[in-house]
Amino acid sequence: MPDFLTDFHHTTTFGASAGGGIDRQAGTPEHGAVRAWFRRRAEELGMTISVDAIGNQFASIEWIPGAPHVFTGSHLDSQPVAGRFDGTYGVVASLHAAASVAEDVASGRLVPTQNLTVVDWFNEEGCRFEPSLMGSSVFTGARSLEDILAVADNSGVTVAQALEETGCRGTDAIPPVASYVELHIEQGRRLERAEVQIGAVTGNWCTRKVRVTVIGEQSHTGATLMSDRRDALAAASEIVLCVERLVGHYPEDAMVTSVGRFTVGPDVPGVVPGRVELSLDLRSREAPKVIEAWALLRSQIEAVGRRRGVTVEIEDFDLRDAVPFPESGVELTEKAAAGAGVSCMRLETMAGHDAISMNRVVPTALMFVPSVGGVSHCEREFTADADLATGLEVLTRVVGRLVEGAPNWVDPAAEAGTSCSGSWSE
Amino acid sequence: MPDFLTDFHHTTTFGASAGGGIDRQAGTPEHGAVRAWFRRRAEELGMTISVDAIGNQFASIEWIPGAPHVFTGSHLDSQPVAGRFDGTYGVVASLHAAASVAEDVASGRLVPTQNLTVVDWFNEEGCRFEPSLMGSSVFTGARSLEDILAVADNSGVTVAQALEETGCRGTDAIPPVASYVELHIEQGRRLERAEVQIGAVTGNWCTRKVRVTVIGEQSHTGATLMSDRRDALAAASEIVLCVERLVGHYPEDAMVTSVGRFTVGPDVPGVVPGRVELSLDLRSREAPKVIEAWALLRSQIEAVGRRRGVTVEIEDFDLRDAVPFPESGVELTEKAAAGAGVSCMRLETMAGHDAISMNRVVPTALMFVPSVGGVSHCEREFTADADLATGLEVLTRVVGRLVEGAPNWVDPAAEAGTSCSGSWSE
Repeated sequence: MPDFLTDFHHTTTFGASAGGGIDRQAGTPEHGAVRAWFRRRAEELGMTISVDAIGNQFASIEWIPGAPHVFTGSHLDSQPVAGRFDGTYGVVASLHAAASVAEDVASGRLVPTQNLTVVDWFNEEGCRFEPSLMGSSVFTGARSLEDILAVADNSGVTVAQALEETGCRGTDAIPPVASYVELHIEQGRRLERAEVQIGAVTGNWCTRKVRVTVIGEQSHTGATLMSDRRDALAAASEIVLCVERLVGHYPEDAMVTSVGRFTVGPDVPGVVPGRVELSLDLRSREAPKVIEAWALLRSQIEAVGRRRGVTVEIEDFDLRDAVPFPESGVELTEKAAAGAGVSCMRLETMAGHDAISMNRVVPTALMFVPSVGGVSHCEREFTADADLATGLEVLTRVVGRLVEGAPNWVDPAAEAGTSCSGSWSE
Repeated sequence: MPDFLTDFHHTTTFGASAGGGIDRQAGTPEHGAVRAWFRRRAEELGMTISVDAIGNQFASIEWIPGAPHVFTGSHLDSQPVAGRFDGTYGVVASLHAAASVAEDVASGRLVPTQNLTVVDWFNEEGCRFEPSLMGSSVFTGARSLEDILAVADNSGVTVAQALEETGCRGTDAIPPVASYVELHIEQGRRLERAEVQIGAVTGNWCTRKVRVTVIGEQSHTGATLMSDRRDALAAASEIVLCVERLVGHYPEDAMVTSVGRFTVGPDVPGVVPGRVELSLDLRSREAPKVIEAWALLRSQIEAVGRRRGVTVEIEDFDLRDAVPFPESGVELTEKAAAGAGVSCMRLETMAGHDAISMNRVVPTALMFVPSVGGVSHCEREFTADADLATGLEVLTRVVGRLVEGAPNWVDPAAEAGTSCSGSWSE
């Protein structure tokens, strides 16, 4: 039976990129291949596979018929030409944590009160198919299955077709979920700078994602006088710089803003671009800041459109509120780290994770391991084997405690009605 | 035998776009189809087809064995989702001008001293395969056949392959060229504003085309603090605005500047872009202004790179000097317009044309008809049938005079050694 590190490093052969990363966008053949590996490996470990209608894969162990399941997992899809740790680490670690817990149950060292399921969420990244957190959002009911199945990529292939083609469109009933745990690389430098081995995540940053389409007029680069132009690229370039400058209104590191997608049409040397489609996001721990910043940015974008005589279409397509993770789950991570003899600190996540979807419906814990230089969504992303192994050990302890039935505290935030809709009470 | 307007409007069915334009980029099946139509139509008109190694097509009539040929033509390729007049008008008009001249020769109304060839240049637009004026530049020796055949499009298909696939890679010997005439839509508003029917082009604007690659670092839009980023898109957006602002250093309409191609990688919502490839051009009637402006822009681009910690690679790939067309050819156009009873004015071309390539090696004339609103490289491009017919009449007169042997004046600029390498002397 391959050990955890062997399994993890083997997964990086699916969609391996030339620079040592992976390119495994959701629903591609490479993604389908690693998901097939997941099913085979889980079956070897004695788990039962089920696949739902949005292509989430579940590998379950049932000790107590009918009891709810502790879920643990992450995702196997990646951004284009990306790192090999983001998502995949959490899935492979969850398989091995589940195997360890199953051994402890078999040997009598652990008495389960709940069952256990490892989950591989579909399309966390949201690059080929927008939005992100797709599988977990449909699972929790935050998004409609029908709408999401109809989402198409740039070449017109729908999510439904991509799931069919990769053999991941299921009809299985999914076991009832009790709680969710996710282990991930940090994708930031806080653990590294503090020289701490485990991060217990206390909440997520508020994120607003917006699509902007700038429609000018396609014309001849050589023959069109400047005063006769309605240049979509020049207008969109101003918008990029407005997005970037927005952070200057706030204290350093209180907000991040980005334009990721920026697609120019027709994108040839001799033509003044007539159209740019861009996706921007604004993030801050404080939702009011994001709301205020977006109002300011929106007025700036509209002013650019008016001044340049171009049409600007704005579509707010994703607003992710800042929600704390249950305190009891944070404490569970801290205790597990202490039990394993490793350091732990509390931090927030700026990045999105399936745990944020799940935190809306069930008690959820998210934990991080360090990421060298904090770089992510690129081939340079790196976490050392020792840190990967430490994360697995802490995850295994947390999953074990949850299977046993802990924690049995009610989350204070949930009690006050300000946190997730689920709670840690049993 | 279809008349000129019937033939012209028929060509717009090859690669017709939904909005009333065409999409017929060089070497595509649609381009191959209209080029096959050209060969059939020329053969019906009694012409002999030859195709050279870079895929230029020639349809010749030989009255005087061994005598040089008057060339007249333009191109059948288009920009993406472009107008149906640019290039195609000149090719179809040349076929009909040649047919008229042949009738006059047959009936004894015109005594030829030179032969006549209609030419369909390969890839004038330079969008799928850079640079522009590809076929005419190889024909004149300004570019190497070997280099150009190896140019690849974004999907790795080479010019050589595209020519093979469209049946346009020839090995024929081409008749000797005496002079070149091209009829084109103006792609500007000067004729329209002056309410003049024919433009006699006196020279071309100087053009510098540059490719810039901005290499930053791909990272996570959510998790990467602003101070940790090296955002290629933000840097490239600043460059776009520098390019646009450059014209402010000069009198109004003395210069045009553009960024046409602007390709972002990886171009997905969740990733700070690591790479942008852009093509810019600067144009002015005065070469010193272009040289000065590029020096300023280059220093600005390099400063953006230094300030943002991104790498900027600059490749000057095309410099087209401002060269006057021979005065005698301009006068020939003016006389032909007068003979046809239509108004004519002198103007310059800001846009590139195959006539600019040919003006380096043989006496060349370029003439324009009005273009509604001056819009071009877009589906809205339009010239009325009456204006198309007027242009054909003037072209036919010019071609007839050239076939007879006129003009027999030496061009003053050529005599002074400041103009093209050919001259209008016989």
